[in-house]
Amino acid sequence: MIELRSDTFTLPTRKMMDAIQEAALGDDVYGEDPTASQLEAEVAQILGKEAAILMPSGTMANLASIMAHGPRGSKVLVGDESDIYIYEAAGASVCGGIMYEPIPTQPDGRLAIADLERAFPLEPEDPQFALPSLICLENTHNRMGGRVLPLSYLEEVRVFADGKGVPVHMDGARLFNAAVALGVEVAEIAGYADSVQFCLSKGLSAPIGSIVAGTNEFIEKVYRLRKMLGGGMRQVGIIAAPGLIAIRQMVDRLADDHSNALRLAKGLAEIPGIVTRVEDVETNIVYFRIEHPRLTWQTFIQEAREHGLQIAELGHGRIRAVTHSGIQAADIDRALQIVQRLMTKHDEQHMS
Amino acid sequence: MIELRSDTFTLPTRKMMDAIQEAALGDDVYGEDPTASQLEAEVAQILGKEAAILMPSGTMANLASIMAHGPRGSKVLVGDESDIYIYEAAGASVCGGIMYEPIPTQPDGRLAIADLERAFPLEPEDPQFALPSLICLENTHNRMGGRVLPLSYLEEVRVFADGKGVPVHMDGARLFNAAVALGVEVAEIAGYADSVQFCLSKGLSAPIGSIVAGTNEFIEKVYRLRKMLGGGMRQVGIIAAPGLIAIRQMVDRLADDHSNALRLAKGLAEIPGIVTRVEDVETNIVYFRIEHPRLTWQTFIQEAREHGLQIAELGHGRIRAVTHSGIQAADIDRALQIVQRLMTKHDEQHMS
Amino acid sequence: MIELRSDTFTLPTRKMMDAIQEAALGDDVYGEDPTASQLEAEVAQILGKEAAILMPSGTMANLASIMAHGPRGSKVLVGDESDIYIYEAAGASVCGGIMYEPIPTQPDGRLAIADLERAFPLEPEDPQFALPSLICLENTHNRMGGRVLPLSYLEEVRVFADGKGVPVHMDGARLFNAAVALGVEVAEIAGYADSVQFCLSKGLSAPIGSIVAGTNEFIEKVYRLRKMLGGGMRQVGIIAAPGLIAIRQMVDRLADDHSNALRLAKGLAEIPGIVTRVEDVETNIVYFRIEHPRLTWQTFIQEAREHGLQIAELGHGRIRAVTHSGIQAADIDRALQIVQRLMTKHDEQHMS
Amino acid sequence: MIELRSDTFTLPTRKMMDAIQEAALGDDVYGEDPTASQLEAEVAQILGKEAAILMPSGTMANLASIMAHGPRGSKVLVGDESDIYIYEAAGASVCGGIMYEPIPTQPDGRLAIADLERAFPLEPEDPQFALPSLICLENTHNRMGGRVLPLSYLEEVRVFADGKGVPVHMDGARLFNAAVALGVEVAEIAGYADSVQFCLSKGLSAPIGSIVAGTNEFIEKVYRLRKMLGGGMRQVGIIAAPGLIAIRQMVDRLADDHSNALRLAKGLAEIPGIVTRVEDVETNIVYFRIEHPRLTWQTFIQEAREHGLQIAELGHGRIRAVTHSGIQAADIDRALQIVQRLMTKHDEQHMS
Repeated sequence: MIELRSDTFTLPTRKMMDAIQEAALGDDVYGEDPTASQLEAEVAQILGKEAAILMPSGTMANLASIMAHGPRGSKVLVGDESDIYIYEAAGASVCGGIMYEPIPTQPDGRLAIADLERAFPLEPEDPQFALPSLICLENTHNRMGGRVLPLSYLEEVRVFADGKGVPVHMDGARLFNAAVALGVEVAEIAGYADSVQFCLSKGLSAPIGSIVAGTNEFIEKVYRLRKMLGGGMRQVGIIAAPGLIAIRQMVDRLADDHSNALRLAKGLAEIPGIVTRVEDVETNIVYFRIEHPRLTWQTFIQEAREHGLQIAELGHGRIRAVTHSGIQAADIDRALQIVQRLMTKHDEQHMS
Repeated sequence: MIELRSDTFTLPTRKMMDAIQEAALGDDVYGEDPTASQLEAEVAQILGKEAAILMPSGTMANLASIMAHGPRGSKVLVGDESDIYIYEAAGASVCGGIMYEPIPTQPDGRLAIADLERAFPLEPEDPQFALPSLICLENTHNRMGGRVLPLSYLEEVRVFADGKGVPVHMDGARLFNAAVALGVEVAEIAGYADSVQFCLSKGLSAPIGSIVAGTNEFIEKVYRLRKMLGGGMRQVGIIAAPGLIAIRQMVDRLADDHSNALRLAKGLAEIPGIVTRVEDVETNIVYFRIEHPRLTWQTFIQEAREHGLQIAELGHGRIRAVTHSGIQAADIDRALQIVQRLMTKHDEQHMS
Repeated sequence: MIELRSDTFTLPTRKMMDAIQEAALGDDVYGEDPTASQLEAEVAQILGKEAAILMPSGTMANLASIMAHGPRGSKVLVGDESDIYIYEAAGASVCGGIMYEPIPTQPDGRLAIADLERAFPLEPEDPQFALPSLICLENTHNRMGGRVLPLSYLEEVRVFADGKGVPVHMDGARLFNAAVALGVEVAEIAGYADSVQFCLSKGLSAPIGSIVAGTNEFIEKVYRLRKMLGGGMRQVGIIAAPGLIAIRQMVDRLADDHSNALRLAKGLAEIPGIVTRVEDVETNIVYFRIEHPRLTWQTFIQEAREHGLQIAELGHGRIRAVTHSGIQAADIDRALQIVQRLMTKHDEQHMS
Repeated sequence: MIELRSDTFTLPTRKMMDAIQEAALGDDVYGEDPTASQLEAEVAQILGKEAAILMPSGTMANLASIMAHGPRGSKVLVGDESDIYIYEAAGASVCGGIMYEPIPTQPDGRLAIADLERAFPLEPEDPQFALPSLICLENTHNRMGGRVLPLSYLEEVRVFADGKGVPVHMDGARLFNAAVALGVEVAEIAGYADSVQFCLSKGLSAPIGSIVAGTNEFIEKVYRLRKMLGGGMRQVGIIAAPGLIAIRQMVDRLADDHSNALRLAKGLAEIPGIVTRVEDVETNIVYFRIEHPRLTWQTFIQEAREHGLQIAELGHGRIRAVTHSGIQAADIDRALQIVQRLMTKHDEQHMS
């Protein structure tokens, strides 16, 4: 089975499994797990932040970050196509008493400065208005096709946010993909945000975990919130050990995922009945549509699965394919064959 | 001073003040204020609902209604130009743990059924999605120019909501204006919604208060929430007494406000530099824009005030004028003269 | 009917009703109701605080104060017999994400400093602990019999709170009763608290409303919260006008309520089957118990009502009687007769 | 170093580490981790419940359970000495809008039925009262010395709760210790509760994780809440695999921890200056106090650590020692020697 539904399906590498065996462990609720502390210190250094903290998931990483930045009654500005807005179960409203204000997402994942501006009331002293306490960016942008936010845009947002006096949080679930795509250090990207989170368990292939980084003061708040939300774990070194392998050894190979994604997109673009935009593929995500008289996305996905290819819909009837460490160039070619054959079969049926 | 900023500036009538003097009073927290009970019973009957309850404000009326309908973690579908979304300080997120999902507002105040449909996840069993628990409509629609939702549209929403198994709440702050404009009973409009609130203190000219109506079970919940939010008041008959006058004697005259608004719009449309859409004026609200080389909405509002006309900006740089019981046809004519003179003065300066 | 269930049953005086008629009114949501502004200014001055704000109820006054002082995730220290803890529907947890930590209430209404001390974790940096953000006192203390907190105790709490760096809020629903009982200015009492609220609608006999006072910065926060909770009202002068009479003309007469309460307690103490502590009666509240072989508090209350006396249970099977402006010494004597006769009747039945 | 601060310091066994290596893994957010599914199925079966779900921590297990049982605005009845009340950072108020009502904890960990009864308002229809939606028991009881709740008491609470129509949640962080101490199946204990949680990471010695069990409907709610709180994790089999060893192979040996705890208590009881109650030791927890003219609990703990014994204060100045799989009888004897020597040293200094 070729698994292209998500890079969250990555399995830990042999080295990660070995690292678990050898990990020094302790009770991290008492702050005594040396492997977790090591991971947090290395990540802070790599991201150029004062401190970092390991979380059980990206969802909690974002939730605790939003709550650490914003008081109850404030609003968080998020893209209307962002994962935070769509896939995180309203956590900031439930746990934080914070309102989400969705901002239109541009095709390349940006939130236009003019749109952000509109979310700030002209008369902030008027109590009928909730006031923005945070701007969230997503980089790379999942539902916009793995697009990378340009550094020049990050600079623009930084200047805007500073002018408004609100912090910026970056949902960098796939932050390292962005860095590899741009050919810069992650710290350069992270430098534009007050806080940033990324997932160990996506392209970096660790089994579990996300990390939030920011100032010492901010991470102290996240630390308290993590406990309250139930994210304080015991011998967390068994998660942190593969996490260390992830950040030390799994970053450079993301370039392979990107070239595999491009290979996939180019191949798909040549298959009649498949509509995709090759020029949008910047990292490890490919979106395409089925435009065929005898196939819908539903039937296409089902038939693909029956032929050994796992893919899934992700909004607006589009199909998403994600490359990762479990996928080689040969898998891409096989996947293209499956799609090709599947379409041809239906074309013939259609013709006959 | 001609006050057109809002119909919330209406002062109580002589009869209302007399009614306060004569009102039977009791402690309504103990359920013993006969005047409040009388008002609630009459309103329930007029709206064709099982029960009704007096609230200190429309904000609390909407907030308690949303909370009574939806559990924490659900989302409430509201227009992106609705008062609930924009002017109520994120209350449902703070107090209710409910997420607002703004739906694009059509120019006539409707939320398109297709847009509502998109807010319902394809896979509701997936825990990453917050699920809709309520649809809110606004009727008449403030920021869309006092537009009245057609009964045929209300019927469509009713059918859609029933299909989805979610209730409909109507923010009818100016519900009676809608009824007068359509020439139907308010109960006919209210019949399409599970719950409805309207303000005694806008066009109906009572000093304080809004009322929520719905089933007995729903009002029981709102009653509990009112206490929790701090809306339980003591000798509330002094508010209810003018409220009774409002619903008994102040409804028919709303037609005058509507014709005054139309008179204003027509007059404005003829003044160069003022842009307005006469055909959109259905009730007591007129929006217009300043398009003039020497005037912005800010300077226009300031100069108008200096000349005795109070108006205000209400979103997107538009100016809103609202007619009400304190405004006669002659006031409209005077207001038009003020605007005319103001524009002319700047034209002359511009020419010279 | 002699109404002793609560001083919330007080009806507005003739002067209050006249004041409503003559009140200058405006839209207080726009900050333009001159009567409300006047009331708020006078109260701030009387209480010796920078600012004050009118609220629809004591419940909202307390709720908004707690929320203004404490962030989500903190805990508010309240007496386990306090009205805030028992009668305010968990508002601070629902709307504020704040935990109530009930502190044992001493028989005279005090919270022992040692008990307050225990609520502060030894290791505040440990994230498993919610941290105190506010101490609430109740003065006079309702469920402890209208007891007045001594100034020396208020001083102790002030010093303790300053040492801990947390503010003090005083639920002074009956603050003026405390001042009259101590023979001091209310400002002297209020001076020990960072914020204080009192009710216009209890002994002061206004129909509706409570007022919170504190620093400008604090009141600014309460102002925002009032809007969010739905406590912003329009022509609120009709509430503020009787409120002005309340604070200007209704304070001194509270001494009558106190002497009537004492008269009642002394009378009750002499009736066999009634148990009360005369020495605890410091203001306008009397508690007593029924100790009689043929009567429970339930049957006693019911029979008393049938004989023209309204009283009610208020915790632990105790009966509360509250004196107020609607009760004269002659009413007390009649009430005592009713009780006397009622007990005698049952004694005779018991004997026979 | 002899580690007696907590059984959370247990390190995974060799078999657990092997199990991690061999575990079948998948993305549990998609419900495709077979090891996690296996663990959840086995636990449900062992506890006699319809379903079970793996959580990152006991804190989240309790938090999600409380939220699944109770709506916002309700109150949860918890022991005033319970871990939920004291150590879980007010989560139910922050995330759930739920009020904690602490009930006095009896010395053996029970909450008296009469005290629970008092938390139910006489007039539930009165909106000023928050209503109980859940009773929480803790079994074994941490701060009461690892005491086991008798089955007869669980039966009493069950009957009481059924009479009131509220569910019972058991915080069974050390549930298996209770079962071993009573010599019954865990299902017999769990049968008295609607929901139960226990920790894999305490005496059972797994590195991470807690499990909640209950009805299918309840677990479905917890599943949604887990996602919202950020407890949904990816290849969670690396946590579940040692969890399977924990429940299959680590239960019976808890008896050793219990006999070691008793050995410790008996030894301590004979050391002058140490006050402990041997008869209270039912499981793996021993509490004692320092009563010595030259030692406080602070100095005692510090000196013990310097001599190779880790212990900690846990409320009211008491010192807690917890036995677990990392502690043998010989460690207990060494620990007793350390304490003996430490006390003797100070006695001699005192004498000289």
